Amino acid sequence: MNCSVAQCLEVVGEWWTMLIIRDAFLGIRRFDDLQQRLGISRNILQQRLTRLVDAGILRRVPYSEHPPRSEYRLTVKGKDLWAVLVAMRQWGDQHAPTAAPPVQMVPKDCGSISEAVMTCSVCGKPIGPSDVESVPRPGYQGSDLLLPGAHP
Amino acid sequence: MNCSVAQCLEVVGEWWTMLIIRDAFLGIRRFDDLQQRLGISRNILQQRLTRLVDAGILRRVPYSEHPPRSEYRLTVKGKDLWAVLVAMRQWGDQHAPTAAPPVQMVPKDCGSISEAVMTCSVCGKPIGPSDVESVPRPGYQGSDLLLPGAHP
Repeated sequence: MNCSVAQCLEVVGEWWTMLIIRDAFLGIRRFDDLQQRLGISRNILQQRLTRLVDAGILRRVPYSEHPPRSEYRLTVKGKDLWAVLVAMRQWGDQHAPTAAPPVQMVPKDCGSISEAVMTCSVCGKPIGPSDVESVPRPGYQGSDLLLPGAHP
Repeated sequence: MNCSVAQCLEVVGEWWTMLIIRDAFLGIRRFDDLQQRLGISRNILQQRLTRLVDAGILRRVPYSEHPPRSEYRLTVKGKDLWAVLVAMRQWGDQHAPTAAPPVQMVPKDCGSISEAVMTCSVCGKPIGPSDVESVPRPGYQGSDLLLPGAHP
């Protein structure tokens, strides 16, 4: 499917995978720490980590020779998932039915508790679904129906 | 799990679900159109749509009485997923290994082809993973280890 959302889902479209990436951003790098935090089986965690390494999202970095041990760090490609994670967190903060939001974000330069706002890279104004139109690019395929923004 | 990312994944953490939401933003509202575009079985599509209605992401709106037919429209809660979708699309545009990106975004007020940039809601500066720290909120649980930003 020639769709960039689908391409992203190919990599992160699995529950545990995105939570592993979340923990990687929080500095959790080692297998046992991840396993303890996520509470999943070692087998499944190992599969997901291997998949993320194969996909170029994480890389293995040795931290011990005897015994041989590696930790998992985000690559540039992995760090570029930050905006996806932030958008998910903010949606969950706003719409999660049960718990109070556990984490808030403080940009270091700013020092205030803030939210991330999506803005236009050209004019700098905030943008939302009713502010934008979608237009075809060179990779466009006729079967990918394109219509303007949201139609609530 | 008291994590807003996990809360979001509870709803959208399934491949087809996010593509249904993508299509809803593109104005694809009817069962047969969705089924044709996504190429999934009617059974699975119906399950996913019912789940999205139950989760308050889509709502059914009748468009025909004879025969009785409804279309699916995004609720406010559903429209708030726009930032997640845009972040996924931009990541896919940048890192998808195969296809050329099919769609580009033009904010109506701006008129230029642009990207969405995450900025701080307080100071307005662009923010990325190395610019922010995470701090606990009232809903914080001791088991949710909190560490500053990314540790590449």
